[in-house]
Amino acid sequence: MNDFQIFKNIQNHIVLNEVEKLQIIASFSVIDIQKKQQILEQGKLCKRIYFVESGSLRAFNIGVDGKTSTIMFAVKDWWITDMNAFVKKCPSLFYIEALETSKVVALEFDALERLCETVPKLERFFRILFQNAYIREQQRALQSISMTTDQRYRQFIMNYPAIVQKVTQKQIASYLGITPEFLSAIKNK
Amino acid sequence: MNDFQIFKNIQNHIVLNEVEKLQIIASFSVIDIQKKQQILEQGKLCKRIYFVESGSLRAFNIGVDGKTSTIMFAVKDWWITDMNAFVKKCPSLFYIEALETSKVVALEFDALERLCETVPKLERFFRILFQNAYIREQQRALQSISMTTDQRYRQFIMNYPAIVQKVTQKQIASYLGITPEFLSAIKNK
Repeated sequence: MNDFQIFKNIQNHIVLNEVEKLQIIASFSVIDIQKKQQILEQGKLCKRIYFVESGSLRAFNIGVDGKTSTIMFAVKDWWITDMNAFVKKCPSLFYIEALETSKVVALEFDALERLCETVPKLERFFRILFQNAYIREQQRALQSISMTTDQRYRQFIMNYPAIVQKVTQKQIASYLGITPEFLSAIKNK
Repeated sequence: MNDFQIFKNIQNHIVLNEVEKLQIIASFSVIDIQKKQQILEQGKLCKRIYFVESGSLRAFNIGVDGKTSTIMFAVKDWWITDMNAFVKKCPSLFYIEALETSKVVALEFDALERLCETVPKLERFFRILFQNAYIREQQRALQSISMTTDQRYRQFIMNYPAIVQKVTQKQIASYLGITPEFLSAIKNK
């Protein structure tokens, strides 16, 4: 049981005893995903939040004009979901797809809420998790309005070296909101 | 004491008794701010998270090129801080300034942590607060890479009608990461 990466992740912020670990493990399911398999479809309900035990995933939106925009990547030890759709139980704005063979731990919304009642200190863990997610997105928002694309690309490879190794240039371009040709021109400069 | 807007805000998600309200009130300070007065300076430590009792504020970054980028606005019933600088105790990336005479409730980081120990259900409140802040920023990130500026402007006025009434066109332009001239061209279309 202690082999699960998710316990290491949670215990970065709170201490769990064996009973609490059992309660947590009873709440989640482990899912093996093949490369390119989707665990969330745009327009469908988003019932789960996922923790990446191994492998890597990508969340992306396809616009009415057919343009693909990458919302986020998630590698081992990351959490990923369409937070809005997950919390508000509304249709998802994006797909989540495995970039390679991956293993995730999935938690449903109601199971998460019940778990927080059974193990109240998990509220603290999720408070810190979402606090950090908020920080990441607040900084991304600042970068997207204040930095040049060149600076944003360099910031991305500096912040997320583990992700850069797993993804294509086309995917990085769609994360930055630019064309692959523009990214290529930046890299050649 | 029950006149404080902050208690209504917290009680959207958890129930507080009178003792808990007293414990919370003992942890925060109330600050009156004049129009254009700054409660956070870029490059300085960000010691507090603020809740807006009345008035309105704006968080903005000034780049090395002198360009102003608006990170967020906060009106009555909103929380505002440089989350990264607040949590990690590092220099702030932005200024926070009052757009008009305002009243805020300020909580220091250590007081917040202590308060969560004394009133553990506040962990739940802050979990939901940051969960919603994360949702807001995740959607903003998606919009910034997938939508045209025209669509982003329309989304902004639709999402935040209370803010639109308080801010200048120049400030909205700096929130969208465009020049005031470009915003004016969009509006004239």
